[in-house]
Amino acid sequence: MTYCLGIRVAAGLVFAADSRTNAGVDSVAVYRKVFVFEQPGDRVIIVLTAGNLAITQEVISMLDRGIATDDPSRSLAKVPSMFDAAQLVGKLVRVVYDRDGAYFKAHGSEFSASFIVGGQIRGEPHRLFLVYAAGNFIESSEDTPYFQLGETKYGKPILERVLTPEVGLVETAKCALVSFDSTIKANISVAPPIDLVMYRTNAFRVATHQRVQDDDPYFNQLCRHWGEGLRRVFAAAPDPPWALDHGDAARTLPLDPIVATAPAK
Amino acid sequence: MTYCLGIRVAAGLVFAADSRTNAGVDSVAVYRKVFVFEQPGDRVIIVLTAGNLAITQEVISMLDRGIATDDPSRSLAKVPSMFDAAQLVGKLVRVVYDRDGAYFKAHGSEFSASFIVGGQIRGEPHRLFLVYAAGNFIESSEDTPYFQLGETKYGKPILERVLTPEVGLVETAKCALVSFDSTIKANISVAPPIDLVMYRTNAFRVATHQRVQDDDPYFNQLCRHWGEGLRRVFAAAPDPPWALDHGDAARTLPLDPIVATAPAK
Repeated sequence: MTYCLGIRVAAGLVFAADSRTNAGVDSVAVYRKVFVFEQPGDRVIIVLTAGNLAITQEVISMLDRGIATDDPSRSLAKVPSMFDAAQLVGKLVRVVYDRDGAYFKAHGSEFSASFIVGGQIRGEPHRLFLVYAAGNFIESSEDTPYFQLGETKYGKPILERVLTPEVGLVETAKCALVSFDSTIKANISVAPPIDLVMYRTNAFRVATHQRVQDDDPYFNQLCRHWGEGLRRVFAAAPDPPWALDHGDAARTLPLDPIVATAPAK
Repeated sequence: MTYCLGIRVAAGLVFAADSRTNAGVDSVAVYRKVFVFEQPGDRVIIVLTAGNLAITQEVISMLDRGIATDDPSRSLAKVPSMFDAAQLVGKLVRVVYDRDGAYFKAHGSEFSASFIVGGQIRGEPHRLFLVYAAGNFIESSEDTPYFQLGETKYGKPILERVLTPEVGLVETAKCALVSFDSTIKANISVAPPIDLVMYRTNAFRVATHQRVQDDDPYFNQLCRHWGEGLRRVFAAAPDPPWALDHGDAARTLPLDPIVATAPAK
């Protein structure tokens, strides 16, 4: 499994991905899923990958070869907008599909791949896209300021509670790490190291790129703060007003009409 | 979708279920998924249902008819142990499968049904089981003190952080409601009213059975406390030690070897 996360706030972009891949729990490996392309002063483009590793590596390799060319239809260094960057990634997935799709089908494998593509090119605001295996894509919005790939559910509640476009860049990064903490605690196939990239709006260079290991002192401090804080909030939660242990009077609901109380013998 | 939760702590049992069923988002209805059987002083048995409503209603109807008999192999009022109660539910799912399974297959429908069965029968400790569509079942343990059905992921992190066998009964109920809050916020197909049943160990009667509506003042107070508490804990989270916006020196990681920085022109 994988967990990848891309967030767009007014202050910038935050990307995070674990680095565990697996083909069944007996075949687990560490692969980078975050790829950064930076041309300082002009553009920063970040690509996160999820799905079949053979597909995503092929797409990344083609992006890499494209950068060596001066062709705006192939090179992330030359695409005129982030929209074109997302379109290029989508086009390359289709190249792989056209070549490999029939073999995937023949072997009963799902053609599974998805990408988060974000960044900023001079002359445009910073933007964030989600590219599907079919090569089509969507862009984030004020209402939906983030995209997730892979094991998305465990880490979503904290994103929903905290993220708005006004949240600062460092707070956004903390939120991403807490979201990873919740996911890692719940799904053994998502694991550190976590690649974390932060980009500040209009900087046209990466602000920081961290590889957060299992024993990272800051990550552990943050997780401990979060876990202890949650338990503290929980301990202070108000008690329900319901009477307990008072027999029938305490049941504000009649017992179920289908399976009801049997007459006492 | 459905979210059902059964928790066993030393102090007792807590059950909660939403009451929304849907066959596609354009066909949504409210059905009770919690069924309580109580013979005060002798036994309390609670059954939670998830999956295909036609299957689960048939099982519940057969349980209901069984109670009218004096047959320990058919009646929850007569089964000698909670193990037998779980086995009876499993047996009835198999009866439905034997009759309807071929038609499900013919229509391309999945035979999907699962049940949480918990309670206490005099002479035994309180116990909690999860019954699968295949009619087989497992029992909870100290290490795994709860079972979830349906939309399980969003509400799991809080259970993992808070639940141990020593947690009190009221705290366990609060934890269940917070778990529902996280799930309801993330999945529109899980919705109140929430049926909540609490059972205190060795009481042999239900402690309380609440139907928690959308506008329930306590539920709203609890959710607000939780949401505000989380945001407060989050706001107090420690800042990362990483230098930001300091250009190359700030990147503790080299840029990716595959998609690297293009030479500035």
